[in-house]
Amino acid sequence: MKPVKVGLLGLGTVGTGVVRIVEGHQEDLSSQVGSPIIIEKIAVKNSDKTRSITVDKHKLTEDPWEVIRDPEIDVVVEVMGGIDLTKEYILEALDRGKHIVTANKDLMALHGSEILAKAQEKQCDVFYEASVAGGIPIIRTLIEGFSSDRILKIMGIVNGTTNYILSKMSQEGVSYEAVLEEAQKLGYAEADPTSDVEGLDAARKMAILGTLGFRTNVELKDVSVRGISQVSKEDIAYAKRLGYEMKLLGIADREDDHVSISVQPTMVRKGHPIASVNGVFNAVYVYGEAVGETMFYGAGAGEMPTATSVVADLVAVIKNLKLGVNGLKAIVPYKPKKLKSDEQIAFKNFILLHVDDKAGVLAKITQVFAEFGVSLESVVQQPNELNPEAEIIIVTHNASKASMDKVLQHFEGLDVIRKIKSVYRVEG
Amino acid sequence: MKPVKVGLLGLGTVGTGVVRIVEGHQEDLSSQVGSPIIIEKIAVKNSDKTRSITVDKHKLTEDPWEVIRDPEIDVVVEVMGGIDLTKEYILEALDRGKHIVTANKDLMALHGSEILAKAQEKQCDVFYEASVAGGIPIIRTLIEGFSSDRILKIMGIVNGTTNYILSKMSQEGVSYEAVLEEAQKLGYAEADPTSDVEGLDAARKMAILGTLGFRTNVELKDVSVRGISQVSKEDIAYAKRLGYEMKLLGIADREDDHVSISVQPTMVRKGHPIASVNGVFNAVYVYGEAVGETMFYGAGAGEMPTATSVVADLVAVIKNLKLGVNGLKAIVPYKPKKLKSDEQIAFKNFILLHVDDKAGVLAKITQVFAEFGVSLESVVQQPNELNPEAEIIIVTHNASKASMDKVLQHFEGLDVIRKIKSVYRVEG
Repeated sequence: MKPVKVGLLGLGTVGTGVVRIVEGHQEDLSSQVGSPIIIEKIAVKNSDKTRSITVDKHKLTEDPWEVIRDPEIDVVVEVMGGIDLTKEYILEALDRGKHIVTANKDLMALHGSEILAKAQEKQCDVFYEASVAGGIPIIRTLIEGFSSDRILKIMGIVNGTTNYILSKMSQEGVSYEAVLEEAQKLGYAEADPTSDVEGLDAARKMAILGTLGFRTNVELKDVSVRGISQVSKEDIAYAKRLGYEMKLLGIADREDDHVSISVQPTMVRKGHPIASVNGVFNAVYVYGEAVGETMFYGAGAGEMPTATSVVADLVAVIKNLKLGVNGLKAIVPYKPKKLKSDEQIAFKNFILLHVDDKAGVLAKITQVFAEFGVSLESVVQQPNELNPEAEIIIVTHNASKASMDKVLQHFEGLDVIRKIKSVYRVEG
Repeated sequence: MKPVKVGLLGLGTVGTGVVRIVEGHQEDLSSQVGSPIIIEKIAVKNSDKTRSITVDKHKLTEDPWEVIRDPEIDVVVEVMGGIDLTKEYILEALDRGKHIVTANKDLMALHGSEILAKAQEKQCDVFYEASVAGGIPIIRTLIEGFSSDRILKIMGIVNGTTNYILSKMSQEGVSYEAVLEEAQKLGYAEADPTSDVEGLDAARKMAILGTLGFRTNVELKDVSVRGISQVSKEDIAYAKRLGYEMKLLGIADREDDHVSISVQPTMVRKGHPIASVNGVFNAVYVYGEAVGETMFYGAGAGEMPTATSVVADLVAVIKNLKLGVNGLKAIVPYKPKKLKSDEQIAFKNFILLHVDDKAGVLAKITQVFAEFGVSLESVVQQPNELNPEAEIIIVTHNASKASMDKVLQHFEGLDVIRKIKSVYRVEG
């Protein structure tokens, strides 16, 4: 049988894993697809670099175009990262009739619709399972496993770095800064952690999940984002005391045909399946109208988990290749996008206020909630041991974002409130 | 576009859900497959029965052969259950070139290989996602999501009835008999609960998962089975005290190319993802060489979750139909089956002994473990408050089944042991 030839763009962590799996599992893989799989050419930054795997020097090139333009290559596996130039490579590869497997969430979140449109035009496959939640096959699950259902809500812990930081803060009662420093030493966080800790990485993944789950074209700009850099150990202590775990959650939900997508630190009630996902693990919780609650858990990053998803996509592309059906099963978002307004977005809120410790304060505060129609689930007032002020901890019932914004705006001008210390979304 | 015509065998719980989804989500479904989906004919036991959905009377028949033999029908969805006669229907439908979607674990566990062989011969699809773990798309995950990986272990809570019973026993400290009675009243357990509580239902599902995970033909007779009817509330109390939850686990594992598959009540260490799966929920934990730990969680039964999987299969069949590739992606187990011997099967054990309360007893007992090469993780001896005897609680390190059988056999003849009270597998 004619071997299938693969070109690899990038030989970093994930690329190395891909080579390991394709070579190490060759027998299993070729039994499934009906022919050998050969990694024909690999584009790298530096072909003289010492590597943890042995690669035939003749396969390496420092020019990605050599991979893209090689007429022998059937499938291009892109694990080099990057956005603009990488997009050029991929569009050109598609133009030449090559199929694409990519792990690139940035690219897919920003230019997914353009790339998928080109793929459809050229009858090519573009698979990107590894772009969200590493080793968890969540993209196929949304496309195929729940093709019959109407997905109403997706909640994801889709960034391992921030989950590691929040888990550690919760388990050890230490500060954000201390854990971040440790995570950087361990290699769980980058030297510049902005993209992770400010929620941007999670937002990109949620744009992809929202598009697939709701079959409408969710763009990165549609995702409201708040990171974890302002989460204090005190906030986490309050969360625990009230029976919640603090998690950076991506939340995509829909009501009728209106959707909203956000990423924010969220207090999740203990007992909810996603509340106990700790460390660098990822999990995606999916609520479907028919199927109800489901959750998918696993490693969100790392050489071998991510490579597992990349090679599973490669197997799928090659099976399609053998059957001559590449590009024919692509999911094109077919629903017009309707974003929820701030009046339609509703959730529970946790609010921690520092207030004057005197009579009538609570009445003034609860009056503001009443005025804007926000009803309260619980209110606790307690003295603050250090200052001549009191703390008020409020958990609201579901309230619209519009109403909550007005309440908080009003609080800014209320003289009895010394500080709006924290506000968090509450789930579960 | 020409509509796709579906014949339904059975209109019980799951069949009703299938009709609800196909009719209720018609627009979404036809957008995906490119043509309307029509449920053309439905075989029922009693066509005069009052039902919770409105069905055109003319579509009902009491003769399944009418569905099988209708030349208009493209796909047969089998949700009637049963084994021998149902197998005949399905084989005949395949002979007539119809594709099959089934939720029938009994049929697939017992006759899966014969049915799949016939399907391959006739180039037809046979999909059976709903046969294991209801709404959790675990079969596609094993076939496609992890096609690139080498799966080393699958642990499943794949029977909701027994998980409900054990969860309740654990949470409320009540007896097996009391919870079973309650579960029967609530409809979570059948009037004759044998198939569930004795582990047979779980064993059938594990045969299916083992076959897919290890790509070798696991048969029901290869699964060693022990149910939960002998689990006492005391056992569960001991488990909790030692930091475990008692779960009926299906466990399929492999080392090199040797596999073992079993179902048994198992003490799972708290903190393991599967330990916190409670109530009627199902979960399948998959450990892959490359991907590491993953877990998939959701409803294991029920009208709508199970119907979600059935209709997702139907969508997949119809997409294949449009592409003309039915039957071409079938997974045929290609590895020769090698079962682990009792010397190769190894796990940790919990053992509770009632012994004479006198000097030298513990020495005699630990001597037996030493003789057969079983090393111990922990040993606790404590007086029994009610009797002039002591309890010894032992947790072993990994020990071969063969050695443990010899130890237990030896214990039978040891005069200081009054009773081998309980023995459980330990995981996590």
